[in-house]
Amino acid sequence: MNQELLGKLLTEVREGKVEVDQALQRLKDFGTKDLGYATIDTHRELRTGYPEIIFGQGKTADQVAGIIEFMLTRENNILATRTNEAVFLKVQKICPEAVFNPLASTITIRKKEISTPPTFISIITAGTSDLPVAEEAAVTAEIFGNRVERVVDVGVAGIHRLYGKLSIIRQARVNIVVAGMEGALPSIVGGLVDKPVIAVPTSVGYGANFGGLSALLGMLTSCASGISVVNIDNGFGAGFLASMINRL
Amino acid sequence: MNQELLGKLLTEVREGKVEVDQALQRLKDFGTKDLGYATIDTHRELRTGYPEIIFGQGKTADQVAGIIEFMLTRENNILATRTNEAVFLKVQKICPEAVFNPLASTITIRKKEISTPPTFISIITAGTSDLPVAEEAAVTAEIFGNRVERVVDVGVAGIHRLYGKLSIIRQARVNIVVAGMEGALPSIVGGLVDKPVIAVPTSVGYGANFGGLSALLGMLTSCASGISVVNIDNGFGAGFLASMINRL
Amino acid sequence: MNQELLGKLLTEVREGKVEVDQALQRLKDFGTKDLGYATIDTHRELRTGYPEIIFGQGKTADQVAGIIEFMLTRENNILATRTNEAVFLKVQKICPEAVFNPLASTITIRKKEISTPPTFISIITAGTSDLPVAEEAAVTAEIFGNRVERVVDVGVAGIHRLYGKLSIIRQARVNIVVAGMEGALPSIVGGLVDKPVIAVPTSVGYGANFGGLSALLGMLTSCASGISVVNIDNGFGAGFLASMINRL
Amino acid sequence: MNQELLGKLLTEVREGKVEVDQALQRLKDFGTKDLGYATIDTHRELRTGYPEIIFGQGKTADQVAGIIEFMLTRENNILATRTNEAVFLKVQKICPEAVFNPLASTITIRKKEISTPPTFISIITAGTSDLPVAEEAAVTAEIFGNRVERVVDVGVAGIHRLYGKLSIIRQARVNIVVAGMEGALPSIVGGLVDKPVIAVPTSVGYGANFGGLSALLGMLTSCASGISVVNIDNGFGAGFLASMINRL
Amino acid sequence: MNQELLGKLLTEVREGKVEVDQALQRLKDFGTKDLGYATIDTHRELRTGYPEIIFGQGKTADQVAGIIEFMLTRENNILATRTNEAVFLKVQKICPEAVFNPLASTITIRKKEISTPPTFISIITAGTSDLPVAEEAAVTAEIFGNRVERVVDVGVAGIHRLYGKLSIIRQARVNIVVAGMEGALPSIVGGLVDKPVIAVPTSVGYGANFGGLSALLGMLTSCASGISVVNIDNGFGAGFLASMINRL
Amino acid sequence: MNQELLGKLLTEVREGKVEVDQALQRLKDFGTKDLGYATIDTHRELRTGYPEIIFGQGKTADQVAGIIEFMLTRENNILATRTNEAVFLKVQKICPEAVFNPLASTITIRKKEISTPPTFISIITAGTSDLPVAEEAAVTAEIFGNRVERVVDVGVAGIHRLYGKLSIIRQARVNIVVAGMEGALPSIVGGLVDKPVIAVPTSVGYGANFGGLSALLGMLTSCASGISVVNIDNGFGAGFLASMINRL
Amino acid sequence: MNQELLGKLLTEVREGKVEVDQALQRLKDFGTKDLGYATIDTHRELRTGYPEIIFGQGKTADQVAGIIEFMLTRENNILATRTNEAVFLKVQKICPEAVFNPLASTITIRKKEISTPPTFISIITAGTSDLPVAEEAAVTAEIFGNRVERVVDVGVAGIHRLYGKLSIIRQARVNIVVAGMEGALPSIVGGLVDKPVIAVPTSVGYGANFGGLSALLGMLTSCASGISVVNIDNGFGAGFLASMINRL
Amino acid sequence: MNQELLGKLLTEVREGKVEVDQALQRLKDFGTKDLGYATIDTHRELRTGYPEIIFGQGKTADQVAGIIEFMLTRENNILATRTNEAVFLKVQKICPEAVFNPLASTITIRKKEISTPPTFISIITAGTSDLPVAEEAAVTAEIFGNRVERVVDVGVAGIHRLYGKLSIIRQARVNIVVAGMEGALPSIVGGLVDKPVIAVPTSVGYGANFGGLSALLGMLTSCASGISVVNIDNGFGAGFLASMINRL
Repeated sequence: MNQELLGKLLTEVREGKVEVDQALQRLKDFGTKDLGYATIDTHRELRTGYPEIIFGQGKTADQVAGIIEFMLTRENNILATRTNEAVFLKVQKICPEAVFNPLASTITIRKKEISTPPTFISIITAGTSDLPVAEEAAVTAEIFGNRVERVVDVGVAGIHRLYGKLSIIRQARVNIVVAGMEGALPSIVGGLVDKPVIAVPTSVGYGANFGGLSALLGMLTSCASGISVVNIDNGFGAGFLASMINRL
Repeated sequence: MNQELLGKLLTEVREGKVEVDQALQRLKDFGTKDLGYATIDTHRELRTGYPEIIFGQGKTADQVAGIIEFMLTRENNILATRTNEAVFLKVQKICPEAVFNPLASTITIRKKEISTPPTFISIITAGTSDLPVAEEAAVTAEIFGNRVERVVDVGVAGIHRLYGKLSIIRQARVNIVVAGMEGALPSIVGGLVDKPVIAVPTSVGYGANFGGLSALLGMLTSCASGISVVNIDNGFGAGFLASMINRL
Repeated sequence: MNQELLGKLLTEVREGKVEVDQALQRLKDFGTKDLGYATIDTHRELRTGYPEIIFGQGKTADQVAGIIEFMLTRENNILATRTNEAVFLKVQKICPEAVFNPLASTITIRKKEISTPPTFISIITAGTSDLPVAEEAAVTAEIFGNRVERVVDVGVAGIHRLYGKLSIIRQARVNIVVAGMEGALPSIVGGLVDKPVIAVPTSVGYGANFGGLSALLGMLTSCASGISVVNIDNGFGAGFLASMINRL
Repeated sequence: MNQELLGKLLTEVREGKVEVDQALQRLKDFGTKDLGYATIDTHRELRTGYPEIIFGQGKTADQVAGIIEFMLTRENNILATRTNEAVFLKVQKICPEAVFNPLASTITIRKKEISTPPTFISIITAGTSDLPVAEEAAVTAEIFGNRVERVVDVGVAGIHRLYGKLSIIRQARVNIVVAGMEGALPSIVGGLVDKPVIAVPTSVGYGANFGGLSALLGMLTSCASGISVVNIDNGFGAGFLASMINRL
Repeated sequence: MNQELLGKLLTEVREGKVEVDQALQRLKDFGTKDLGYATIDTHRELRTGYPEIIFGQGKTADQVAGIIEFMLTRENNILATRTNEAVFLKVQKICPEAVFNPLASTITIRKKEISTPPTFISIITAGTSDLPVAEEAAVTAEIFGNRVERVVDVGVAGIHRLYGKLSIIRQARVNIVVAGMEGALPSIVGGLVDKPVIAVPTSVGYGANFGGLSALLGMLTSCASGISVVNIDNGFGAGFLASMINRL
Repeated sequence: MNQELLGKLLTEVREGKVEVDQALQRLKDFGTKDLGYATIDTHRELRTGYPEIIFGQGKTADQVAGIIEFMLTRENNILATRTNEAVFLKVQKICPEAVFNPLASTITIRKKEISTPPTFISIITAGTSDLPVAEEAAVTAEIFGNRVERVVDVGVAGIHRLYGKLSIIRQARVNIVVAGMEGALPSIVGGLVDKPVIAVPTSVGYGANFGGLSALLGMLTSCASGISVVNIDNGFGAGFLASMINRL
Repeated sequence: MNQELLGKLLTEVREGKVEVDQALQRLKDFGTKDLGYATIDTHRELRTGYPEIIFGQGKTADQVAGIIEFMLTRENNILATRTNEAVFLKVQKICPEAVFNPLASTITIRKKEISTPPTFISIITAGTSDLPVAEEAAVTAEIFGNRVERVVDVGVAGIHRLYGKLSIIRQARVNIVVAGMEGALPSIVGGLVDKPVIAVPTSVGYGANFGGLSALLGMLTSCASGISVVNIDNGFGAGFLASMINRL
Repeated sequence: MNQELLGKLLTEVREGKVEVDQALQRLKDFGTKDLGYATIDTHRELRTGYPEIIFGQGKTADQVAGIIEFMLTRENNILATRTNEAVFLKVQKICPEAVFNPLASTITIRKKEISTPPTFISIITAGTSDLPVAEEAAVTAEIFGNRVERVVDVGVAGIHRLYGKLSIIRQARVNIVVAGMEGALPSIVGGLVDKPVIAVPTSVGYGANFGGLSALLGMLTSCASGISVVNIDNGFGAGFLASMINRL
């Protein structure tokens, strides 16, 4: 798959260092670890030095712990999202230095330090109820080696609250804006900054918000430029992408 | 239906001025005119002195003209919405002083003056494409006897354009805010004024606006207070309601 | 933001009473109080004399109590909506005169009297199950200084129940109509009165009501005039807007 | 399929009047006529004496004419719905007595008289724009042998218009109520009569009516009893069912 | 409202038997009983001799019991739907002869006998899981004075099960067909009988049935004639309407 | 219904071996067993030798056990889906050899062996959370007499995991691909194999997956050929259809 | 990608017959032809001997003609779907033997014969308006080397029309069932045959069919087994898959 | 709004260089130009040096030309999107060097050169029909000063076409992936690169794609990381954001 690795392998085959059968096997097995209930992408780790990620939702506590147990054999940081205290108790047994963030519902394990660029990511929330999603984004961005500045509860109903924080926001290299209900905050921020805005709709609200649909559609149809959108409540996705951009 | 009129009729029956059969007939016929394809509510006119309204969409040119022809027998102003030039040409033949507003797609006929209160209605549009809906609201508010101030193209992507007009907006007794796409402008205005905001979602936009759904849901789930919403593209409804509030 | 305040500040800068740095700081800090998890809009209070509002849904009991604790340092009434008994018990400890309304799920604290206009707001419910939403509207309107008349269970299936209350409804300055299922009651009321009708769709019903969608769409597409709509189950929003109109 | 016919056939087989092979063939061929592009249900005609029905939408003019040509070989009335003038011109060539109703978009051919019961069907429309759907219902009910009373433009925005026609409506054996927008009229009628109400939502309206969805959902969730609903704009279905009930 | 009663009242006014003020009061109070949380339509009862109906969903046990307590002062049968055992225990205390049907979730109280016509209603269910809805329809039809024949679990996946019951179905005066999933059974029954079919979509199913939407849309767009549809899971509505038709 | 059986019956009638009345009765009763709450299709069993299937969702434990009790009187395998441990405990009492698969939520009873073809079915899952649906498909395919190869957790985010299993996938006679979220895996597999792909969308995901809608729409609009789709989470349906194709 | 080809290439590299650079290039270029606006998958052709397929919708006439022009350089049959007469005229100039099927909107070019298995595919349509979709399926199945039997207009409203064709349907190896409106026909067919049923929902209908949604959801939630579904109006997809199964 | 400009202004007020009234006026007028139908954000231009952008949809040709006429008074590049040839002819009269791109439906005017970074943006399309959206993105990115590499028609049905272009894609600093139908391509690309992926769903497809909904939901729920989404068919938004990231 990887052009360079493939070239290297072909060269080794050419030079007789590797047999054809071996080469085929290596190509097949390369980059995965089969746990029965999960096929771990071990290739990604080599390639990027990025932390291992586990999406906890829909997995049993045993499955999450099992995957982490395997990951601990590597020298890499680990992030599990959408998890809970019961899962954490299992994980803590096999890894006492694991940290549980109850607001973000994340488990993190730091095995090595990642260099952090001088620029930072701002994470802006429209309301107090959006904090769990924002925190998932923050935890993600931080374990991927980024500095984060949090700006809390500055929704459009009292827009002067945002203006008070404008100097922070304008210094960020990339902004994550987390909002439920009508999801208008990314449009405002997008009109005030010249940096990418990652909009995260949340399911906060009721009635015609239809589980986050109102914020999602609002952000997708924003009249401001420089905005893109991730899934409803997807703090992780926003944090990951912001990290990618901040570390470019 | 009307308590006072009913009391008067009962008194007349009591006093023998009206026969029981007549009273029943009067109750039945009272307040409507049957044109075959339309049953006009003539009662409303007596009650309110308000202009006659015709919703033109889905009616043939002959039907609109026929309804107007009957209405002209009364001494009242007339407003036809969602109409077009072909209809206007028919109407003009029976009423040369009729006026067609191509931007608003309205026909208006002024037969008497309505007193206008000193306060005014602001009509604010997010973008140029929202102008037809805003103009329908303006024409409606004006023929119902209101002064209107128009604020054009001040959508949230360049929010400082709104601030430049804030003194006008803050002096209005009621604000109509017309916006498509994410429909965020009413939330901003609602957070800046202490007067009612009537939000009009428009079908302006494409893709995930789904014919105005994004703006509609955004306005309904607004985090600002003092906002209520009318149907997508319903400039008339907003103008009518704003007039009601302005003339309270 | 506020033209007058800004003018005053500029004059003070001009007169040397305020330094440029101070002016910048004041512009930044003006009108907000940062609690970490919430940024309170203290400006609104000065501006309006209106009660403080807390939207309780999605906030922890500690967060609601913390916000109220700060608000109590001011001399203003307080309204918390979408709350519950557990939250109330926490609030009661820091403010014994707090009142919990279990039907409306509200907490109210009265610190000063607000003048009440002579006109009143009617709040009309289609069915018994709509009462919690109607009561949220009533509590809101009352703490904002309005007299409220309740008309209960007069839905369109037995329309003569509405006629029995017509004299009350016709005397109101503004009407709130709360209905679930097909949400037809605002259309009927809108055709019978000449005052603004604020329609509140509720999630009452099942099947094809899709969580209040049927009532919402019905109210938005109403053939009657003078009607506007707030979010599904948004009693607060209707009460707030009705108060605004009643106090114009 | 038909128990009696099957019994008769089995008896004939038993008595040797019909061979087993013939019986099988007869069972297979019974009750259909294959035109290549259509398989006509000839059995229904024998069973019911009802008119032949052609749903014109999505069929070419040639296909409609071809089906009618075959049907003319029988002695039965014919009804084609959702057709147009171009189709009619083709049909007229093979059947000069065919009648086109441009409002209802129907073609009817009367070859025999059907007895008409003394009771009648009321067809009530909320607005002028609902007339085409109502007329499709009326034409259908009439060719199936029913007397129809039309009540036009009595929508809920001016509910006293309905009261003026209440004596007609209350005498009907079954009521068809045709309404677009919020579709509230069937709920009102359902609360005023003790007879079945067939509700027909129409696509009349715009914006949040979403092609008739608002009226459809409103009618399905009606709080009144005795109401059932047919497809959006399905005048034929309502007329057919009303005829069934009126002729019980 | 009622033409005859109004005529009688007017005559009494005319003859001086009733004062104008009294007449106005009577018109206002006539036909309702105010319980604070409910406005009971007492007029309906006089008019129809029909049982009293309480829609239990969204009402507290005390509210349901309170309404029944009032109703027991009249000599009429009582039906409460969408109720449960906890409510029943309260009701039983004030009315020991009340009967709870756990499958249908109904409470019924029989105070007098209603005449039953010789014809019957068939209630056909597609699957075992549809039984609660079908039973609600059956209980409703029975307390309204109808004979019911139940045909169970004859869905279209094994269509010969339906054919085995065809003689029963064909003798019914009106058919209720209850089906979830794709909701195809009413189309089949509609093609086999010449009597009205009331289709009841149920929320039985999962995934793309979206809470009954698949069955609902399927029944609304049925290619068979003589079918109309009630709300998802609305057994009561189907039973009520079937009774109306059966008793015509 | 069945041409051959019908021919045989007609011949017996012809030969006087069966009376007409008996024949009619047999046609009516043929192929069903009435349990009161369920009408079992006994005909299917004779016809196919296939296992009996019970869809457990929405049925009480007693109903499932009762149906199984009847089925045990036949000599056929039994499969109950969407069941749980409580149901299993009831079933175990009447059939100790019943097997419960907690991952698939199935109960299976093997009373006879079914021949298994040499070809096999591959069941491919995108993620660990899709395993329950995949296992329902696997249990179904196996009890219907098929060999199954499971390929686990090879979703498109790490597409090289799929390539490692390509030789297995390419040898399968038919592939079941189970995926939630964006549901892209069937498109990839469909582009890599020349055999039918049965796509099973799952409800795995959150936010804009709307209960499986995203995966469902994605699979339906796949740009790859040879793909068809079953209901969201419908492992049984996929396993049944795959068995049908594998055993052709 | 292809294990065998890759093995062969590796062997050649090993044996020095192919240079490493060449091997990399070959891997990169292998199996595609770049036309600027299209990247043709030439690999598929080699692999399968299947006809080339062009999805015409959204491509200009020049683009379709250009792709066909390239394809004609190979010795394979060609199928273009969703095309029209204007496109055909362009194609005819470069390939006079091209055939246009106006009902199916397809262009076919036969350059070689494909062997046809003895079994056949039945294509069953519910109504006349479904014919274009059915014909697209038929043309596809035929050019891929299959015998097709068409069964026309046997929808569930007159289910005995289907029974007359049951012997044909039961002999088919796989059935395609094409239906709009409620889309019930696949459920019926699925309950009557023991072979795979490919259900094709069509957009035929109006109102609550919402562009084919009703048929789509109905087919997905079918209570019958052995059914899978393709996209709305996707005759090609059904024909392609049926061919795959028929040729297994 | 802008902290530095505000500080400068305050200093000038302080130093008596600017009067308070002038300062207020300047704050009000600053950064907008009122054309009657449009309020142009002139501030943005000064701030960024970015081209002026006009969203042409919903604007008349005269409005677009008028806005461009004003913009030409500045020394900046101009981009108009969603326009057409008729608009272009008007624009060409006032600006002969304007360029129309019919595939992208854009008008561009280059008045000055913008520096271009050495890194590039890849724009990848799944199919030929996605080209117009991709071209809008390309034109946008180019006029904002970026190098673009186009990769065409490499959708997931023939995934090896993508692999052939992997070396280009992996060198890009940011990737735009344009896809309709199931919209799976961004997930694949996201799993293969370590750079941001901007996913653009298109309305290409039919049936269950519901105007681009399938691609939109698929991209939002992607299991790959590093992906964010813009509105359906929003090539401009993707090109603008990609430029922002590429020029960081």
